[in-house]
Amino acid sequence: MHRDTERAVVLLSGGLDSATCLAMARAEGLDCHALSIDYGQRHRTELAAARRVAAAQRVTDHRVVTVDLTAIGGSALTDPGIAVPTAPTEGIPVTYVPARNTVFLALALGLAETLDARLLYVGANAVDYSGYPDCRPAFVEAFRDLAQVATRSGVEGVAWEVRAPLMHRSKAEIIRAGVDLGVDYSQTVSCYQADHDGRACGQCDSCRIRREGFAAAGVPDPTRYITA
Amino acid sequence: MHRDTERAVVLLSGGLDSATCLAMARAEGLDCHALSIDYGQRHRTELAAARRVAAAQRVTDHRVVTVDLTAIGGSALTDPGIAVPTAPTEGIPVTYVPARNTVFLALALGLAETLDARLLYVGANAVDYSGYPDCRPAFVEAFRDLAQVATRSGVEGVAWEVRAPLMHRSKAEIIRAGVDLGVDYSQTVSCYQADHDGRACGQCDSCRIRREGFAAAGVPDPTRYITA
Repeated sequence: MHRDTERAVVLLSGGLDSATCLAMARAEGLDCHALSIDYGQRHRTELAAARRVAAAQRVTDHRVVTVDLTAIGGSALTDPGIAVPTAPTEGIPVTYVPARNTVFLALALGLAETLDARLLYVGANAVDYSGYPDCRPAFVEAFRDLAQVATRSGVEGVAWEVRAPLMHRSKAEIIRAGVDLGVDYSQTVSCYQADHDGRACGQCDSCRIRREGFAAAGVPDPTRYITA
Repeated sequence: MHRDTERAVVLLSGGLDSATCLAMARAEGLDCHALSIDYGQRHRTELAAARRVAAAQRVTDHRVVTVDLTAIGGSALTDPGIAVPTAPTEGIPVTYVPARNTVFLALALGLAETLDARLLYVGANAVDYSGYPDCRPAFVEAFRDLAQVATRSGVEGVAWEVRAPLMHRSKAEIIRAGVDLGVDYSQTVSCYQADHDGRACGQCDSCRIRREGFAAAGVPDPTRYITA
């Protein structure tokens, strides 16, 4: 099938990184289909943020797929019995959700194949991140290799691409790029324990990295904090 | 952590193949945790079959994780608007669910990491199958490579294994192996459009392959058919 505009599936959590990633895909002139995952996350309010971002960036379509990762647990984000740390910890933190990006990209792959797309976008970042294994280049490359053999289109010779345009940028660089592309970061929620209104705790890893990013970028932080 | 008995996560659909795969893992002396996926499949009765099989084979634990693949669609198994073929078709059939085994193994990977396991079992089979790309050795190998870089334990040096012990066996060989291991195939459901009582249509690809397998194995077919 000939298409003037190539189609992409963009994972959109509702956080700062994925909102920027979507803006970058849009800037490439792609026909963007956003995909958000309702996985039982503690910070469920990020899904409302994803809807705001998808609407503001005028995606072609925005789907929310439900997968109950609380049945697997093993993370502070999916097990209410594990607290979100409010100070930096050694090694991979308890907010790591086992195989989360594998599950998310798998769902993106399924949607892309249904839509006859061969491009996936994910906001994975290996610089200012929390040490998650599934945010590294090796992970993205391995998923691309998997996509190639896992799909009907791959078997038929279509070349899959998994693009992670934020991978090697600092949080400040991501924010500056997003501002240049018109991203409204007040719509996004990064906090792991944001309240129902989307206000951030200001204390978790994700809040800390985000706040430092705005400071380093020289951009006013539009985040609404619970303790302002 | 030292363990006398190694732990494995075994994908269990409730069909003939996965029931045999589980019996093989049990025969290895492994501590088996079965995982079934409620993905909105047309033949939802296979989940009841999975529960029967898990109980009969005395697994340590049986979890059912829900993921709504009907939000993605693109298959006769997840889109009520696409009929299940009742005669063989050319190429990859419409019962192919885009990225299904990628999603299932991703969830198995997440559960395994939570359980501190490093062994995954999947009943993928490349001989008497329906031409699904994600049932081939190349897929299983690519998923193993992905697991290695996607997980905390992989980063820490644990060597992941994805075992597909049925891969190179004919359906008749699978059935004979299962009978030797005491698998009760009357508990299993393979039919893509089984009724609520688990009775098979006798006409879809899956029914045809299963029936021919019992005949070739010289084993009486215990399947309950709607049109007997």
